[in-house]
Amino acid sequence: MVLDLTASAADLTRALCDIPSVSGGEGPLADEIEAAIAAHEHLEVTRHGNTIVARTNLGRAQRVVIAGHIDTVPINGNVPTRDVDVDGAPHIRGRGTVDMKAGVAVQLKLAAELTAPAVDVTWMWYDNEEVEESKNGLFLLSAARPDLFAADFAILGEPSDGRVEGGCNGTLRAIVRTHGVRAHSARSWVGENAIHGAAPILARLAEYRAREIEVEGLRYREGLNAVAIRGGIAGNVIPDLCEVEVNYRFAPSKGVAEAQAHVRGAFEGFEVEFTDAAAGAKPGLDAPVAQQFLAAVGAEAHAKYGWTDVARFSAMGVPAVNYGPGDPHLAHHDEERVPLAQIDEVERGLRAWLSGS
Amino acid sequence: MVLDLTASAADLTRALCDIPSVSGGEGPLADEIEAAIAAHEHLEVTRHGNTIVARTNLGRAQRVVIAGHIDTVPINGNVPTRDVDVDGAPHIRGRGTVDMKAGVAVQLKLAAELTAPAVDVTWMWYDNEEVEESKNGLFLLSAARPDLFAADFAILGEPSDGRVEGGCNGTLRAIVRTHGVRAHSARSWVGENAIHGAAPILARLAEYRAREIEVEGLRYREGLNAVAIRGGIAGNVIPDLCEVEVNYRFAPSKGVAEAQAHVRGAFEGFEVEFTDAAAGAKPGLDAPVAQQFLAAVGAEAHAKYGWTDVARFSAMGVPAVNYGPGDPHLAHHDEERVPLAQIDEVERGLRAWLSGS
Repeated sequence: MVLDLTASAADLTRALCDIPSVSGGEGPLADEIEAAIAAHEHLEVTRHGNTIVARTNLGRAQRVVIAGHIDTVPINGNVPTRDVDVDGAPHIRGRGTVDMKAGVAVQLKLAAELTAPAVDVTWMWYDNEEVEESKNGLFLLSAARPDLFAADFAILGEPSDGRVEGGCNGTLRAIVRTHGVRAHSARSWVGENAIHGAAPILARLAEYRAREIEVEGLRYREGLNAVAIRGGIAGNVIPDLCEVEVNYRFAPSKGVAEAQAHVRGAFEGFEVEFTDAAAGAKPGLDAPVAQQFLAAVGAEAHAKYGWTDVARFSAMGVPAVNYGPGDPHLAHHDEERVPLAQIDEVERGLRAWLSGS
Repeated sequence: MVLDLTASAADLTRALCDIPSVSGGEGPLADEIEAAIAAHEHLEVTRHGNTIVARTNLGRAQRVVIAGHIDTVPINGNVPTRDVDVDGAPHIRGRGTVDMKAGVAVQLKLAAELTAPAVDVTWMWYDNEEVEESKNGLFLLSAARPDLFAADFAILGEPSDGRVEGGCNGTLRAIVRTHGVRAHSARSWVGENAIHGAAPILARLAEYRAREIEVEGLRYREGLNAVAIRGGIAGNVIPDLCEVEVNYRFAPSKGVAEAQAHVRGAFEGFEVEFTDAAAGAKPGLDAPVAQQFLAAVGAEAHAKYGWTDVARFSAMGVPAVNYGPGDPHLAHHDEERVPLAQIDEVERGLRAWLSGS
């Protein structure tokens, strides 16, 4: 089978979802996409692993990257897709419908259809977004072919409920530790209980009030949370170590160093070890091309909370937004489903802008 | 090799320790003990699994059980034993020296030597004390041959620093749980963090002041401690469950139901699930035979904190004490070592009492 890029975006969404492509198993779907897109002579196609890049070369004044990942989190009895009605509105239900094959379907359809867009477009469909960075197709492509990322603006088709979501929060993780002295629990007074010692850490987390920070007109809501806690050796031993893993989501106005200082301050008096960090992305919506895009799709911009690959573009100096069908709260959810109306809406918005109408 | 029960208790300790018998692997040592003890005609020997029982049948007015376990916790580079000096005093160092092969050595030596003790003696050497109850040799013997437990008094050779330790605290474990609502940590306000919800549990544990309770003249020190804490799903998920495992050590004047009520009260407002419990043992030192024993060994009685198999005898209506060489704080420790002087002291005490001198 070869994907029919003249089908409706809804049918294309069903077809893409029904070819399983859990992270690490994107090969067959990447083959389908490459075969379907290679049939179009207005596109210059490059493949890098399971990432497919298709570029127009029309000599336009501006170039835009439009990208989407083709992998999903594991299937849980929700493939193949089915059509369902929710509150009277038709939806496609199944793994990948929201995150983010409906977005990819719209992109593939417009890539094939728009032979002479108003801006040059670099389409990118990449693998392994749902797993560690070292496997991420966009990351690997940016290392191998940074030239392909030369652009004035980027749009990532991540689910945003059909809204334009600018930039994204940064994220860091840290381990906050307490130490004690091991002892037999029958003689607990000989030891010092590291789990009891973590009481103030949890109290500070419970009392913490996250801030809302305005960046370039968009309001970013932060969050500081324990995502794991562990301690304990055996049922009769006073534990000498307790670890609380915290995740801090911070506004894109802060750099990683500033965010780390904030976390250090929150847990003053405790050992803090930072385990990973990724800066956020400022919305970048003051660029003229971004303003044209907003006007064409007729959408108001909102802040994106979750960290997405827009931050990679931002780090390369390319303003980037998220714009795709589907409710991000349903991403990874077993009830994942996308409303047909949002697929149409995003398709119309992108077509209007790329057509220069 | 057959164990030489005419050797000194110190040499016998070395020999017993140098035959590894980590729980589950006691067979070879049980064989040695059975062969050595079977050579003595004043003893009626019964074997049950890897538990050896040897009884005198002299028609004495009173019968005493003297018992010890032959298994150890795992070896950690500390077998074979070596002779070491600590603060100028000679010790035998190695796994099992304290817990509790020195005690077993004294028992084996006296079992062989004392052909006509002043009381009838039921010697018991059993396996699997260091692991779950369902494997415990004394527990299995009590189920299969309760008749062998008919006695007026029992002495367990658990390490007690050469002192007599009466009874033992009870112990129970419980899981104290908090529930929340799972969410993506980028939108933490949509969820409810169960780890943050556990802050008051840790605060109550940190503030808890354990009591000292006098039972039959001995002071039992209690303890309420977290022995484990767990929570967390992934680095980007607000966790919906946190579990704190607590261990309550309670004085033998309390039954299990009363102890559970105390724990429920300490964590009022939280879900509490009890996972296991064992009542303590009252000292039982008012029995005449116990008083004779105390007088003969010339030791003052103290409270035992840790739960030991004396509670099994207590539950069967047999007053029981711990009396053995070795510092219980060094049990399971990689630096486990027993002073030769304590082996001698316990040997002299037991011999004096059993000889009726």
